[in-house]
Amino acid sequence: MSAEGVCLILGAGSGIGAHVATRFAREGYHVALCRRTDQAGLQRSVDIIKEAGGSASGMLLDATAPDAIEEFVIQVENTHGPITTAVFNLGAQSGDRGLAETSLKQFELAWRMTSLALFRLAKVLMPLMVERGSGTLLVTSATAAARGNAGQHAHAAAIGGRRLLCQSLNAEFGPRGIHVAHIIVDGAVNSPDTLGKLLGPERFAQYRDMLGPDGLMDPAEIAETYYHIAQQHRSAWTFETDLRPFSGKPWWND
Amino acid sequence: MSAEGVCLILGAGSGIGAHVATRFAREGYHVALCRRTDQAGLQRSVDIIKEAGGSASGMLLDATAPDAIEEFVIQVENTHGPITTAVFNLGAQSGDRGLAETSLKQFELAWRMTSLALFRLAKVLMPLMVERGSGTLLVTSATAAARGNAGQHAHAAAIGGRRLLCQSLNAEFGPRGIHVAHIIVDGAVNSPDTLGKLLGPERFAQYRDMLGPDGLMDPAEIAETYYHIAQQHRSAWTFETDLRPFSGKPWWND
Amino acid sequence: MSAEGVCLILGAGSGIGAHVATRFAREGYHVALCRRTDQAGLQRSVDIIKEAGGSASGMLLDATAPDAIEEFVIQVENTHGPITTAVFNLGAQSGDRGLAETSLKQFELAWRMTSLALFRLAKVLMPLMVERGSGTLLVTSATAAARGNAGQHAHAAAIGGRRLLCQSLNAEFGPRGIHVAHIIVDGAVNSPDTLGKLLGPERFAQYRDMLGPDGLMDPAEIAETYYHIAQQHRSAWTFETDLRPFSGKPWWND
Amino acid sequence: MSAEGVCLILGAGSGIGAHVATRFAREGYHVALCRRTDQAGLQRSVDIIKEAGGSASGMLLDATAPDAIEEFVIQVENTHGPITTAVFNLGAQSGDRGLAETSLKQFELAWRMTSLALFRLAKVLMPLMVERGSGTLLVTSATAAARGNAGQHAHAAAIGGRRLLCQSLNAEFGPRGIHVAHIIVDGAVNSPDTLGKLLGPERFAQYRDMLGPDGLMDPAEIAETYYHIAQQHRSAWTFETDLRPFSGKPWWND
Repeated sequence: MSAEGVCLILGAGSGIGAHVATRFAREGYHVALCRRTDQAGLQRSVDIIKEAGGSASGMLLDATAPDAIEEFVIQVENTHGPITTAVFNLGAQSGDRGLAETSLKQFELAWRMTSLALFRLAKVLMPLMVERGSGTLLVTSATAAARGNAGQHAHAAAIGGRRLLCQSLNAEFGPRGIHVAHIIVDGAVNSPDTLGKLLGPERFAQYRDMLGPDGLMDPAEIAETYYHIAQQHRSAWTFETDLRPFSGKPWWND
Repeated sequence: MSAEGVCLILGAGSGIGAHVATRFAREGYHVALCRRTDQAGLQRSVDIIKEAGGSASGMLLDATAPDAIEEFVIQVENTHGPITTAVFNLGAQSGDRGLAETSLKQFELAWRMTSLALFRLAKVLMPLMVERGSGTLLVTSATAAARGNAGQHAHAAAIGGRRLLCQSLNAEFGPRGIHVAHIIVDGAVNSPDTLGKLLGPERFAQYRDMLGPDGLMDPAEIAETYYHIAQQHRSAWTFETDLRPFSGKPWWND
Repeated sequence: MSAEGVCLILGAGSGIGAHVATRFAREGYHVALCRRTDQAGLQRSVDIIKEAGGSASGMLLDATAPDAIEEFVIQVENTHGPITTAVFNLGAQSGDRGLAETSLKQFELAWRMTSLALFRLAKVLMPLMVERGSGTLLVTSATAAARGNAGQHAHAAAIGGRRLLCQSLNAEFGPRGIHVAHIIVDGAVNSPDTLGKLLGPERFAQYRDMLGPDGLMDPAEIAETYYHIAQQHRSAWTFETDLRPFSGKPWWND
Repeated sequence: MSAEGVCLILGAGSGIGAHVATRFAREGYHVALCRRTDQAGLQRSVDIIKEAGGSASGMLLDATAPDAIEEFVIQVENTHGPITTAVFNLGAQSGDRGLAETSLKQFELAWRMTSLALFRLAKVLMPLMVERGSGTLLVTSATAAARGNAGQHAHAAAIGGRRLLCQSLNAEFGPRGIHVAHIIVDGAVNSPDTLGKLLGPERFAQYRDMLGPDGLMDPAEIAETYYHIAQQHRSAWTFETDLRPFSGKPWWND
């Protein structure tokens, strides 16, 4: 078992999830990754960590499937030891979409992946952490958690609700030693798997050029703040922080 | 058909819903009420309005049933004419409940009644209002829409998400002439049907005594602000307002 | 003495202040106006009210002068009776101005007119209202009270601080029967005296054309909401509301 | 000259200021301290750093005196080299104080120390940092920056305004490479100089006992987050973070 314990990452694509994994593995955590699809990509993330001398494991997981999250947590605990940090990195941003173009199914899926999945993770994880008197839950969030906007009906409702769920979890479990943190990533991340797929390779490259150097958020740099928050002493915990590129407008000015 | 048009009220118990109905009926609106249970109570609300010379209709409706909201809107429009104001008054506050005591089913039900139901109402209503170039959607909200808290996991996630859904609807439909307003009722309402049932008659009476005169919110007075907002000129619309008793602490001081 | 009491208005230019005055006078309040300059404009506002059968008085007043606000309040109370509603309508918006272009003097003046002046009004008015067990203080606020922005250093610091001063006043005096309300006017007002002067007549006309019908906020319509809030029953008070034109973006989307 | 540059600290008492100084000095920064009074205490802070092998200097400074901040910045730059990080750690919290007990002088002093002093620092510092294309300004903030409360009239108005000033500075200077961060210290800090003096030694000890282990915030741990934020890559900057002890209620639940 790892000296630093286990870092579980729900949603480990090539962006924030993978870089947070690498960052924690470098410090001695075993990282347990999962993502919905792309076994090869997942394996690549695991291999990179192992080649650098770290400890990692991974599996494909559909977070909306019944019992999938619950079983993954139990399996990771049984195989690799206590989860000391969990990173919730799932979302369902699907670009701008007016009300007429947003189906009930999409509205429900956004909620299942973004809000319900965190609730389910908390239901299985919090009792384990409470018993141990410590643990950290880091939740990747986004601009739409702070305010709705045209074309964001499904995404904003799901992720805005999740922000208040995080506040509720913090209120119940903070005093019992569990650190819940809500990290608002308020800018576009340099991530081929998510933004790159959303825009397509050509528009992604154009967008990157338009923003200029460091105008897209570097997921490796984002991971530094995740790691810092997970190490904070319990007398000085962050519940919420924002992150954005120097050249980007914050959500309240945009 | 009514001169002022039709005011549809989703969630017309004996509190805010019934008093908003009475207020709008007094000004000449036909009010179309629905509530989940209690045919006798619903009939009483309709009768009170009719006896006062107003125009009202009502039906029982389970807002979580497939197509129920959608069919109600169509039926009201066909029978009574264009809905000029819709009041969304559904919620699923079920008192303080820790994470362990909150089931997945409860978490989902809260979302279905609070957030999905509004999305469904908007899906059917917005196109009708856009075609007419006007219309008002008033959403009753609560303290938990502003911040989570221990014991509020399901409620805060649902209603906090709905607040951002309202912002999204406002962003898309405001410029097309539809007035969406989010009304944060940040205090306990003097309502036998909801608070009274939650606490039971004895504790409800004790609580009322403890708060002193006007310490509980009078739903008839709340209805005045609903009516005012629905009459605002489109050059000076309220999107969000809070309401609380003079003696109550606002959510940010409580 | 007026049946409805006295409505004192600090900052009664031709926009919100003058229209709020007219609205309250129509309902039987004596309105006591003041503005910094333009005796003729002030007299015109008083005359309009009197010609419509209302009761009004006015004086020029520099709100930054020592004792000016304090003496005005005392004088109005002595001459016209108890102030039942006070409308604080002062501000110091001076357009976009970078840090280098904002002098210490301008930064201080913004604070003196916007924040300190309200504190001074409260210091003299609250004890009078507390003794009577009732009273209303309506504070006109703006976009910059919700968030800072480039070019808004002086304005945002002053008015953002005032928002929290209003929350503090509400916390101390709400339970003693005094209604404090903070009204965020989150759009451009059709007001020749303020916006018109800021832009100049030509750009003002162009701007109005660009925004289209009802794209500028009608101060007479804004006054309707001021009047409504002042009449709210103490079991259902608004502390904060926003107001903007249907076609305008709210501050969190702009 | 120091390899890491100079960290200037306005307000270096024995709490956050002194610990941030120690933290930055440990990494190779020269730290330039100032505080209003207590030459012996200031010298102690400087000596501790020097004895640990660091580089530090200090002077007494009344931040409300004309030109004091401006001259300090120039002098530090001339003597020790470019200021790469400035920590603004001034405030004027003076405990609960009702409106009647808050004098105009106190209201003004709070503003001068909290809001105007930051504006003055920015006026002299930003042009220097803009010329160099980089720099960091960390602002220590508090609960009252997020919301007013009874007894907080002067403090909340000053520090709430300063929060929006920070947003304005960020909006103007972020895109020019200057990192402005607003750190909400939302709990009581284990600091004999500020909280200890406010409460007196006996009540301070009682309060600490009541809160239990780690119930007061450890300023050395707070300093870790200051240091982290100052090192963030410009593609992933924090503008605002909160910090509180695990057992403390966040401002929105308190």
